[in-house]
Amino acid sequence: MSRNVLILPGDGIGPEIVAQAERVLASVNDRFQLGIDTDHALVGGSAIDADGVPLPEATLSKAKAADAILLGAVGGPKWDGLEMAKRPEKGLLGLRSELNLFGNLRPAILYPQLADASSLKPELVSGLDLLIVRELTGGIYFGQPRGIRELENGEREGFNTYVYSESEIRRIGRMAFDAARRRGGRLCSVDKANVLEVTVLWREIMNELAAEYPDVELSHMYVDNAAMQLVRAPKQFDVMVTGNMFGDILSDCAAMLTGSIGMLPSASLDENNKGMYEPIHGSAPDIAGQNLANPLATILSVAMMLRYSLDAAEAAEAIEAAVGQVLDQGLRTADIHADGKQKVTTEEMGDAVLAAL
Amino acid sequence: MSRNVLILPGDGIGPEIVAQAERVLASVNDRFQLGIDTDHALVGGSAIDADGVPLPEATLSKAKAADAILLGAVGGPKWDGLEMAKRPEKGLLGLRSELNLFGNLRPAILYPQLADASSLKPELVSGLDLLIVRELTGGIYFGQPRGIRELENGEREGFNTYVYSESEIRRIGRMAFDAARRRGGRLCSVDKANVLEVTVLWREIMNELAAEYPDVELSHMYVDNAAMQLVRAPKQFDVMVTGNMFGDILSDCAAMLTGSIGMLPSASLDENNKGMYEPIHGSAPDIAGQNLANPLATILSVAMMLRYSLDAAEAAEAIEAAVGQVLDQGLRTADIHADGKQKVTTEEMGDAVLAAL
Ligand SMILES: CC(C)[C@H](C(=O)O)[C@@H](O)C(=O)O
Ligand SMILES: CC(C)[C@H](C(=O)O)[C@@H](O)C(=O)O
Repeated sequence: MSRNVLILPGDGIGPEIVAQAERVLASVNDRFQLGIDTDHALVGGSAIDADGVPLPEATLSKAKAADAILLGAVGGPKWDGLEMAKRPEKGLLGLRSELNLFGNLRPAILYPQLADASSLKPELVSGLDLLIVRELTGGIYFGQPRGIRELENGEREGFNTYVYSESEIRRIGRMAFDAARRRGGRLCSVDKANVLEVTVLWREIMNELAAEYPDVELSHMYVDNAAMQLVRAPKQFDVMVTGNMFGDILSDCAAMLTGSIGMLPSASLDENNKGMYEPIHGSAPDIAGQNLANPLATILSVAMMLRYSLDAAEAAEAIEAAVGQVLDQGLRTADIHADGKQKVTTEEMGDAVLAAL
Repeated sequence: MSRNVLILPGDGIGPEIVAQAERVLASVNDRFQLGIDTDHALVGGSAIDADGVPLPEATLSKAKAADAILLGAVGGPKWDGLEMAKRPEKGLLGLRSELNLFGNLRPAILYPQLADASSLKPELVSGLDLLIVRELTGGIYFGQPRGIRELENGEREGFNTYVYSESEIRRIGRMAFDAARRRGGRLCSVDKANVLEVTVLWREIMNELAAEYPDVELSHMYVDNAAMQLVRAPKQFDVMVTGNMFGDILSDCAAMLTGSIGMLPSASLDENNKGMYEPIHGSAPDIAGQNLANPLATILSVAMMLRYSLDAAEAAEAIEAAVGQVLDQGLRTADIHADGKQKVTTEEMGDAVLAAL
């Protein structure tokens, strides 16, 4: 059986960190005889530079044909002046939408070796392990109508539409309930049902689904309170589920609680667990090309890919164990460096993970 | 000259904390001969119970006639089952909208006496003093069309509209630039201009205004990054300005950074600095009627009211100094209590502030 993985290095630090992740993928591919073939394509700013568009046809068709996709990161100041339809981000949003990757899993885990990196007091975050399930192909990111129009009085107004149908809510709800069932059995659905009708429907459907999952304890929280509770006592959460926009905000907040977003992978899945995998952090143009970036989030994204899309849990565990080992050895890239630890480059970190494998 | 203040105790702990704030207001009214008259009315759940609606006509007309409004808090589980148009929150939203209170000022200040209360490490929050300026009468909270409709395929969809006109953006922008000018001279505008057209217009207008305020340094930040940066390094901010929904989320997050949302007041202002003043915290139904709640946020809301709407800065300073004094004395309500400090009730805290005045 052969499996195809499409690799999209993207922009900024993307190519550097993906290079290390590819070495790791090649190594487990060999060792566990996974039969994985890889191919490469352009997306985001690098695609704009080469082809004039953030998501070239060739990239999209390769992505559709692949069994899984590994993405670095997209965007950078170089393309910030472009109008919205032509920006690097549209490459990412286009992939999510065209591939129907509606379920975004964003774990926020505190590595015990990095406990000091958090802004929060140690007792509030030690052992933190929460999962945010974010809807990724609907909501206000994709809602129509949208745009900027002229009013009768001559001034302009900007408008976007926050919209969810029952079936969109149901499928992301199921993914979240399933995840909660495999974990601590608690699901917190985040909405603004005291103000927004679209989230009244969201809450109703989540309540409906709860009947199918008697083993999962469902609770609801308003989004403003959720942002407070993440800062106050993040360990109260097991799995959180929310829409695209709230999920964007809350998952970044949750990731930052760990103090090491250079460590956190994410998965974006379709109905059949085909997925795109990427680090939670961005393209960090300020340190691009300097061999400084932390490749571990991308390497851990490979592990997630093996587990969710390529049915290779054993290989995933081997990678995760290797990452734990290099942390135990005291190796740290600049973003997670601390006194008494050994500072290493992007490549040296890759070397160390390979050696630990 | 006589000035009218309308008092809206609201629900939950509202009546208890407002009672202490009223004593403080009466005291400075006397001492500084402010000529303030007070009147009372119902809003929220208590209005629903008495009159069947969250914002009775009588309350609205008193509010329109008043020079300033002091509000406790609204809402509670008792009214959670009601449909959205009849919920307590609609009383609050109706007041904001009918009185044109478009500018919501939400300071997040860390009181040195309460430095330990924060979830964050002391060095990250000591001296924290940031101001969030939130647009309060527009955006997705009030945008049309909105609702839940049936689709052709028989399923339902919920929808809301996120909309801002140039003039709405300009007036909140001016309020924020003015505030930054009076403070540290730095303004960070928060949007999602890489995805949402409405915030592309927002960013454009903020840039336009920057030309009128050469003494204020304007920067822009995406909302997901802003949520991260608030957790990572909140002291980087002076003033932040954003729309209604993002402001709801970020201001609660920022308030929680101080660890003492029982201490934080807020102001909601119209074009002429007429305003409604309220604590940032909610109605806390779980501790209502138990003489446990912290009245200081409401007492500090009185100080804000005196300063912004009633031109009585001296009286405001006297109140703020008195609050500082009771904290120095080691008095703490349950929410901010710590070892070695004296636990006091709502009323005892009011007594202490009056004594310090
Ligand atoms: C780059 C941007 C369009 C994207 C988003 O908002 O979804 C990013 O912030 C993310 O969370 O993956
Ligand atoms: C009660 C609710 C409608 C309100 C809001 O969302 O504006 C509250 O959260 C606030 O921030 O004042």
